[in-house]
Amino acid sequence: MKEIRIGILGFGTVGAGVVEGIQKNGTLMAGRTGIHLVVEKIADLDITTDRGIAVPDGVLTTDAMSVINDPSIDVIVELVGGTTIARTFTLEALKLGKPVITANKALLADHGEEIYKTAREHHTGIYYEAAVGGGIPVLRSQRDGLVGNRIESIYGILNGTCNYILTRMEREGLPFDSILADAQALGYAETPPDLDIDGIDTAHKAVVLASMAYGAPVPMEACPAKGIRGLAESEIENADALGYRIKLLAIIKDNAGEVELSVEPTLVPKTHMISSVSDSFNAVFVKGDIVDDTMYYGRGAGRLPTGSAVIGDIMEAAADKLHNVGTPVSVTMMLQRDTLDYYPEGNIEKRCYLRFPQANLKAAAEVLEKHGIGIASVEESFSVILTQRAKESAFVAAMAELGDAIRLRLEDFE
Amino acid sequence: MKEIRIGILGFGTVGAGVVEGIQKNGTLMAGRTGIHLVVEKIADLDITTDRGIAVPDGVLTTDAMSVINDPSIDVIVELVGGTTIARTFTLEALKLGKPVITANKALLADHGEEIYKTAREHHTGIYYEAAVGGGIPVLRSQRDGLVGNRIESIYGILNGTCNYILTRMEREGLPFDSILADAQALGYAETPPDLDIDGIDTAHKAVVLASMAYGAPVPMEACPAKGIRGLAESEIENADALGYRIKLLAIIKDNAGEVELSVEPTLVPKTHMISSVSDSFNAVFVKGDIVDDTMYYGRGAGRLPTGSAVIGDIMEAAADKLHNVGTPVSVTMMLQRDTLDYYPEGNIEKRCYLRFPQANLKAAAEVLEKHGIGIASVEESFSVILTQRAKESAFVAAMAELGDAIRLRLEDFE
Repeated sequence: MKEIRIGILGFGTVGAGVVEGIQKNGTLMAGRTGIHLVVEKIADLDITTDRGIAVPDGVLTTDAMSVINDPSIDVIVELVGGTTIARTFTLEALKLGKPVITANKALLADHGEEIYKTAREHHTGIYYEAAVGGGIPVLRSQRDGLVGNRIESIYGILNGTCNYILTRMEREGLPFDSILADAQALGYAETPPDLDIDGIDTAHKAVVLASMAYGAPVPMEACPAKGIRGLAESEIENADALGYRIKLLAIIKDNAGEVELSVEPTLVPKTHMISSVSDSFNAVFVKGDIVDDTMYYGRGAGRLPTGSAVIGDIMEAAADKLHNVGTPVSVTMMLQRDTLDYYPEGNIEKRCYLRFPQANLKAAAEVLEKHGIGIASVEESFSVILTQRAKESAFVAAMAELGDAIRLRLEDFE
Repeated sequence: MKEIRIGILGFGTVGAGVVEGIQKNGTLMAGRTGIHLVVEKIADLDITTDRGIAVPDGVLTTDAMSVINDPSIDVIVELVGGTTIARTFTLEALKLGKPVITANKALLADHGEEIYKTAREHHTGIYYEAAVGGGIPVLRSQRDGLVGNRIESIYGILNGTCNYILTRMEREGLPFDSILADAQALGYAETPPDLDIDGIDTAHKAVVLASMAYGAPVPMEACPAKGIRGLAESEIENADALGYRIKLLAIIKDNAGEVELSVEPTLVPKTHMISSVSDSFNAVFVKGDIVDDTMYYGRGAGRLPTGSAVIGDIMEAAADKLHNVGTPVSVTMMLQRDTLDYYPEGNIEKRCYLRFPQANLKAAAEVLEKHGIGIASVEESFSVILTQRAKESAFVAAMAELGDAIRLRLEDFE
């Protein structure tokens, strides 16, 4: 039996989940892997609040740097959140050659390149399964299980708060604002909720998925993001009547070597499995050129599910350390090339759902056709037009003439 | 860049898929991992049939043992199938300390204990992702991503042939025999089809999943299996009218330390995501005590999807070899304990769908109640009773009195 000593930075929701998981199943894990995990130190500015977990005397400290610098600690777990002090802690640990586990998608989206390169330079690893899809082992599935595949496309429901709000709007027919307020009261949505409902959190995760798929850190600017703020019940009702549900969908595609990314509320057919992903669950469809369609589903957030992913990464870091792996594949896969080519937003081809609260549908159809946008169907009773595939730039030009029309993407996965 | 030399035993469907995948994406994989795979030798009794793949002169041989014994070959890929010569080849390679990759679920189900122990004794590995769920990285997700979890339950659609037949029966309303004949003509079903349609193939995969979940080789006798042979259209139609679909479902549960396994055609609610798994796709739901519900979905068979899983395993074996891992976790997880306790089949609690072509429903209900089986609903128009949960032994006793009634499991995942 080998022993690996862990230092955890941040004793909030996920930090407490990680400690609880290790306390509960540490013996089971040791039997499976031959590695015994010891939580040596936990650093947090607040070491007095009761997290419902007993930790031995001397484990808690307010001094994160002392944990990073403690020579008896093998692995650092960064769960402080944010992109300032979390960046500092992560880089300091990596510079000491210590592997770092993080659940911090914003940190990777904003500072990934610096972090991966620092890890490589110091022959150690950064591990980040929990940053995308919470407890779902989707990054390691793509990285290891699908290593033989060129990734053709990824479709993800990556934000549990948005999916929870959309599911309740659909089931209960209530307005966005009241469900959001309720979700905040229940602790399912942050206050302020902007990162979630404006699609930024989903975009953070999309760029991490795309970075791994295509082998270079992807900047946030490459991922245009729209959220679900202010989505009207009528869109959800109309979508339902037309055989669709609305999901906040990250879409990543390889267009002949150019990477297409976007996040936007999207109508998906009820017949497609992704439409069955409800409540706060997440799901990611990954299509490889060898394996074809695969899908990964589970809880995208929460103390224990996210803790499960962090623990999986701790075990991987521990095994890599014991086997002197040096720079692991979680780093090399992100640094295969210096840059990627991104598909300009205007070139993204999509179908759209358009609702015209005021306009004459016939006049609207003429404007669309003038811009080269084909009509798939006209739903007079809802004042809705479903279009054929056309470029985003054509939609933008047409919408400028069409006034206050509402536009959502429609994806039929064909 | 490190080079790893592979010997492939068996140049059938999957063997050709593996070679095609490596030819297509070998450079991409080398960029991701730093490991360059070289297909050094391919052994098959038939080295003249065109598999649609060009291989260099001297790669093909009819002498499998010469490939195993070739000191320049690092990794052996066993794709000959069956449980006799495949066992010999696997054991011979392991005894030379060479890692073996296999897609052979029957081999693991019948000889797993001997194989895992031989690998451990010779400080090498056996890798078998492709044996369960084809291209879906489900075993490594459970093994690595969910390593921190006690596995509470696993539900799997694990046989693409059966799922294809059930999907077509449901969509087309045609009888079992004609769809089976069609599937055989199209190459989606073997001739004879017994292993698939009698549930044996699903049971082979279920025991591998259970072995990994609970840490010891599980014998086939621990997994009672029923198949879909002769399933009547009326069952599918009735299930549909009642809000269910019929799937051949493997169910694995931890009942307070006793492992429950079974394979049988099962009514699943249309509202549950597993009911959306159609055609030849497979899916596995794994519930962990930390991560809660997760699900993995993809193609459960086929030349390239299975090849994708084999290639993922080759890369893992290659990395393990380069890092001198010795006995990998794919072996240690199977050998955590000597034996498991199995739940006797009679004790398995389940709900059932019962159809009585002849009997008086009122009399039938009395018999069920006499055996302690509660009635959930009576559907007079179909001569169907849906029961509450009761023990399998009670159902067996009641059915002995009820004559030619048809019985299927019903699972509501609660």
